[in-house]
Amino acid sequence: MNGQTVALAVSTVIFAARDTGPDGRKELWVPLVRRIREPFGGMWALPGGPLLEDEDLEASAARALQLTTGLHPGYLEQLYAFGGLTRSANADERVVSIVYWASIRADQTSDLHADLNVAWMRVSELPPLAFDHSDIVEYALYRLRNKVIYSRVAYSFLGETFTLAELREVHEAILGTPLDPANFRRHVLASGAVLDTGTRLEGTPHRPPRLYRYNTDLDLADLFPAGRTTQEKP
Amino acid sequence: MNGQTVALAVSTVIFAARDTGPDGRKELWVPLVRRIREPFGGMWALPGGPLLEDEDLEASAARALQLTTGLHPGYLEQLYAFGGLTRSANADERVVSIVYWASIRADQTSDLHADLNVAWMRVSELPPLAFDHSDIVEYALYRLRNKVIYSRVAYSFLGETFTLAELREVHEAILGTPLDPANFRRHVLASGAVLDTGTRLEGTPHRPPRLYRYNTDLDLADLFPAGRTTQEKP
Repeated sequence: MNGQTVALAVSTVIFAARDTGPDGRKELWVPLVRRIREPFGGMWALPGGPLLEDEDLEASAARALQLTTGLHPGYLEQLYAFGGLTRSANADERVVSIVYWASIRADQTSDLHADLNVAWMRVSELPPLAFDHSDIVEYALYRLRNKVIYSRVAYSFLGETFTLAELREVHEAILGTPLDPANFRRHVLASGAVLDTGTRLEGTPHRPPRLYRYNTDLDLADLFPAGRTTQEKP
Repeated sequence: MNGQTVALAVSTVIFAARDTGPDGRKELWVPLVRRIREPFGGMWALPGGPLLEDEDLEASAARALQLTTGLHPGYLEQLYAFGGLTRSANADERVVSIVYWASIRADQTSDLHADLNVAWMRVSELPPLAFDHSDIVEYALYRLRNKVIYSRVAYSFLGETFTLAELREVHEAILGTPLDPANFRRHVLASGAVLDTGTRLEGTPHRPPRLYRYNTDLDLADLFPAGRTTQEKP
């Protein structure tokens, strides 16, 4: 298992669904870091950097999250290792980047601290990023879209309790397409993925919507004829 | 993106479903390589080794497959990067292993070439492996089981055409549990994942079973209310 010496970096794609769209609809945002040196000086890149000697991969990804958002990860998962031969700007340098992705709950986004060299941008309006980071964000979004229906990932964008409209808007923000409210409601309730908390959203008009929570007992096992669940290993 | 210097290795978990069980039922097998030097000398380990300067990650994984089975990969996918601090036997050494997994079609297993230091073993009867490779195989199997229902992966174990019994036996070998033939048949046909080729298995008794092929047009999109498919990025 003796491996060749290759420069190794860890980067993290951090998604948040913020109520910044028309009528307060949710939109996907990611924090980016401005590069202060070459190559790609001045361009925006994913948070991250070299793997430190004394930290494992996930700790390195969590550190990037902490530095850019001030938050500890809720949902943090390894996405992919990118190791193409030509992805580094320096021909003498071989860099393999192990990329994680994380999500931040809506009720945490107010805690996001700002920094001249850290900016949150709409996923739908990203500028060209340094290195192959545009491709990495695109792939992270692709995987998030594939994952959102059959896993619990959508709930990681929400607080402990949420309305079905909030849950639908998270799906819409991730999938980038509107979903029929009635069909969505029927599908979610039929899946058994959520439980009615018996409480309703406060501070709302005369018919406050019900609040639900994720049903951790079920984990959408019903999608699987053999009774296996779709949950990734923690 | 300059990364720290860390030893990097690539290993590949190669699955094949072979007709070695009772009544010729399919069982999962993996090829292992005997270590000829310390640490863990004489123990079995996953095929793989250091990443070469001139090959990308997937090429390195494909090389391990070629060396141990003589085959070019059909299905080859990155599984996970393992980078724990204590996984190397040598305390001075930090090794990150990027692990791929591959599958071999049933009609290729006859091509497997043997080698004193390469052995195929039943997944259900593996000895303790070198390093953390036992955990890696366990995780690969966990992911394969989660993936088999909602993706095309089961078909990568089969030839271009197959009977529904063969398809069911691949699922049974992977899931490690018998499936009800009638329920399985109904589920598969209803999913639209397979197409009747109009031909039947030759050399079989008076009622030869129909041969099917994977429906590449559909990719089980029906599992997804929003119409997304479950396919991983190639």
